[in-house]
Amino acid sequence: MGIEREENMFKTLAIEPLTKEAFAPFGDVIESEGRDYFMINNGSTRRYHRLAEVQTDQQGEGIISIFRANPLEYPLHIRMLERHPFGSQAFIPLFGNEYLLVVAPAGTDQVDPATVRAFRATGRQGVNYHKGVWHHPVLTLTENDEFLVVDRSGPGNNCDEYYFDDSVHLELKLD
Amino acid sequence: MGIEREENMFKTLAIEPLTKEAFAPFGDVIESEGRDYFMINNGSTRRYHRLAEVQTDQQGEGIISIFRANPLEYPLHIRMLERHPFGSQAFIPLFGNEYLLVVAPAGTDQVDPATVRAFRATGRQGVNYHKGVWHHPVLTLTENDEFLVVDRSGPGNNCDEYYFDDSVHLELKLD
Repeated sequence: MGIEREENMFKTLAIEPLTKEAFAPFGDVIESEGRDYFMINNGSTRRYHRLAEVQTDQQGEGIISIFRANPLEYPLHIRMLERHPFGSQAFIPLFGNEYLLVVAPAGTDQVDPATVRAFRATGRQGVNYHKGVWHHPVLTLTENDEFLVVDRSGPGNNCDEYYFDDSVHLELKLD
Repeated sequence: MGIEREENMFKTLAIEPLTKEAFAPFGDVIESEGRDYFMINNGSTRRYHRLAEVQTDQQGEGIISIFRANPLEYPLHIRMLERHPFGSQAFIPLFGNEYLLVVAPAGTDQVDPATVRAFRATGRQGVNYHKGVWHHPVLTLTENDEFLVVDRSGPGNNCDEYYFDDSVHLELKLD
């Protein structure tokens, strides 16, 4: 089920603000702003409950890691996306810096470039990519930035990469 | 198997610096400082891998929440600790503020006050309480502080509370 194309594609991705609604096809936004909560700990703490679920398969388990990331060069030519077929992957900024996201829907082994979208997250927004959602590796804008990562560990290959062919030029430009 | 005591206990807890080694009986320290990593994403990212595992039972799953917490009053009389028998619970500071921890070992239904320990975490250290480890609810020192929390959701009562009796006075004092 290839994607037919008559000519080269050249597109600069529009960078959308990250909202729960806009990101819903791809995963969860992990933030307290504007969300429901309930009180715990005798009234000293608000719990913004279950902003995301850690998806794993039966043989896998959730693990917690830290990624220390550096910016790529912009304008950025998006050459590939990856997906994790057996579990979700959450990224939460630890230093409060904004960052970018590039995603495409789960469900196909090839990525239709027309479906690729880009988002800008504030430093108070984490995301949780749902199982199988195509996404670009971390796109920080800050040197030595850190993210908490919650993903699945277990047997099998949990990372597929998809490379766009040479006729596709998806570009991410900073303002 | 009660804990026998001949007289009242009054103790100001020593506040220890949080290190991986000192905290090992209670859980994991989630930090990049001084830890091993490997490179991913074509060399742009260090992965500090598997700093903690999300423990759940078969019927439970890991979830991601945010706690917005306020400080308690100090000196603080530690009246109770809680534990989660079916899973781990991780706290990672989102605003880079230091905070305190009060813990006691897993494995007994009553908490021996002689085993209670206190730690001070930097704003770049998260923790993951292992299943069943007794701990005080979140002890931030900053108004409207936020923590990312990764814990277990599922059927059954996953929170036991243990109240010290009146003869026990465990106190936490700030410098």
